[in-house]
Amino acid sequence: MIWFTEYQTPNTGLTVKVKEAKTVKSKYQEILILDTYEYGKMLVLDGAVQTTERDEFIYHEMLAHPALIKHPNPERVLVIGGGDGGTIREVLKHPSVKEAHLCEIDEEVIKISKEYLPTISCELNNPKVQVFVEDGNKFLDERKSYYDVILLDLSDPVGPAEALFKREFYTKVKNALRENGIMAAQTESPFLQELYFKTAVNEIKQVFKYFGTYLAFIPTYPAGMWSFTLASDDVDILKYEESEFDKIKDLKTKYFCDKIYTSLFSIPKFVSDLIK
Amino acid sequence: MIWFTEYQTPNTGLTVKVKEAKTVKSKYQEILILDTYEYGKMLVLDGAVQTTERDEFIYHEMLAHPALIKHPNPERVLVIGGGDGGTIREVLKHPSVKEAHLCEIDEEVIKISKEYLPTISCELNNPKVQVFVEDGNKFLDERKSYYDVILLDLSDPVGPAEALFKREFYTKVKNALRENGIMAAQTESPFLQELYFKTAVNEIKQVFKYFGTYLAFIPTYPAGMWSFTLASDDVDILKYEESEFDKIKDLKTKYFCDKIYTSLFSIPKFVSDLIK
Repeated sequence: MIWFTEYQTPNTGLTVKVKEAKTVKSKYQEILILDTYEYGKMLVLDGAVQTTERDEFIYHEMLAHPALIKHPNPERVLVIGGGDGGTIREVLKHPSVKEAHLCEIDEEVIKISKEYLPTISCELNNPKVQVFVEDGNKFLDERKSYYDVILLDLSDPVGPAEALFKREFYTKVKNALRENGIMAAQTESPFLQELYFKTAVNEIKQVFKYFGTYLAFIPTYPAGMWSFTLASDDVDILKYEESEFDKIKDLKTKYFCDKIYTSLFSIPKFVSDLIK
Repeated sequence: MIWFTEYQTPNTGLTVKVKEAKTVKSKYQEILILDTYEYGKMLVLDGAVQTTERDEFIYHEMLAHPALIKHPNPERVLVIGGGDGGTIREVLKHPSVKEAHLCEIDEEVIKISKEYLPTISCELNNPKVQVFVEDGNKFLDERKSYYDVILLDLSDPVGPAEALFKREFYTKVKNALRENGIMAAQTESPFLQELYFKTAVNEIKQVFKYFGTYLAFIPTYPAGMWSFTLASDDVDILKYEESEFDKIKDLKTKYFCDKIYTSLFSIPKFVSDLIK
């Protein structure tokens, strides 16, 4: 019997029973595809669970939809990271989107996701999608005032994604947005990764005029408590417009809904206190 | 090096590194007190984590405060289960409370909590508190129209607490409430314990006129996604009064706050769908 444990900190972890396991060493990281009894297929990068068939809908919906609903008319969207394709799949649920770019540094992640995670990667061949196998940091050097929405779908700030949680990088993201542009970033767990969380949100606050942090329940992520942060220089993130709710009605989702959107920024006291 | 894993289902679990462990066999269950590196002291009953020093504030605040805020003037409160004393501690933060009764079946849980979990059990000797070592089911047979708020702080519906998740028991709870009485119950995880969750909420719906289900992030509970249900025959649970928010201002809490209260019933779509 095979068991896999992700040590979310040196002192606690998530343990899952495994049917089958496959490991690939890429140029950047160790990629593990597990077939688990509880969560279906699970993608693990350098020992950290990235996505599972059973709970991926929560992360991908909650990273993509708040930003795309908040933007009045998102046509050009960029996802940095997210080689599994789940975020792109959610982006394409918005009919206004004309171009969805994916910038993933590790080609192997894309290949493996296409082979083992078809329900997640299913839209990567959509004609609206263009995939760039590039370093997000370099990619943004060549894009100025282009995107309406940029989604940072990154692994933890250790390893390949480390530089992408810094002020310099968020400034590049800001410069790559055109008027009314909005960024959404996964900003780690406020419970088991307090320092990662605080640092990411504080760096974002230094760069953008408006911001708002929200949470979602993600069973296979540290503490099951995950954070995301929306930011913009033009759009007041915390203000709601009636028209945003019309767009939600037509979205096919399992977690995100009008109630979740209305109460997005209603977060527990200790989480607000961390980012005051 | 000692590690402990709670198998939240046969196929997944929470793993923690342990400094010290002590086991006591009571008349009802196996009681384990672990001193863990990540979560501090941890109370485990029949293999299931009940509370930890680090994250207990979330469960106890979220079980107690919504009901006590919703009730216009809670004077008499009963906690069934909850031998660790954490819920009683939160109840006593409400100045209107004159009598707080605790009905716990297993005296050993109370003893061990007093010895090993002083920050949780700290109010059990408060003069407003009366402790009854009794079966909750029998206890309620003798109490009619007495309490303003009853809090069901129960372990999973297997073992000692099984009968306390059934319609017959919820009916006894209803009969033990006086006018404007409110019940709050922990109703399991909608993610890894879908059937427990659905069953508990559906039984409650059969018994009470008004109800409302809400969630909280509890890192050491299954999936980190936990549910609670408020119910009443007289108080419209989903309706808010201005005066409720005045009471929140004076509460000293770490998780619960006015924002959490306002958006209490804004739950993910798949969770609402389970209890439609």
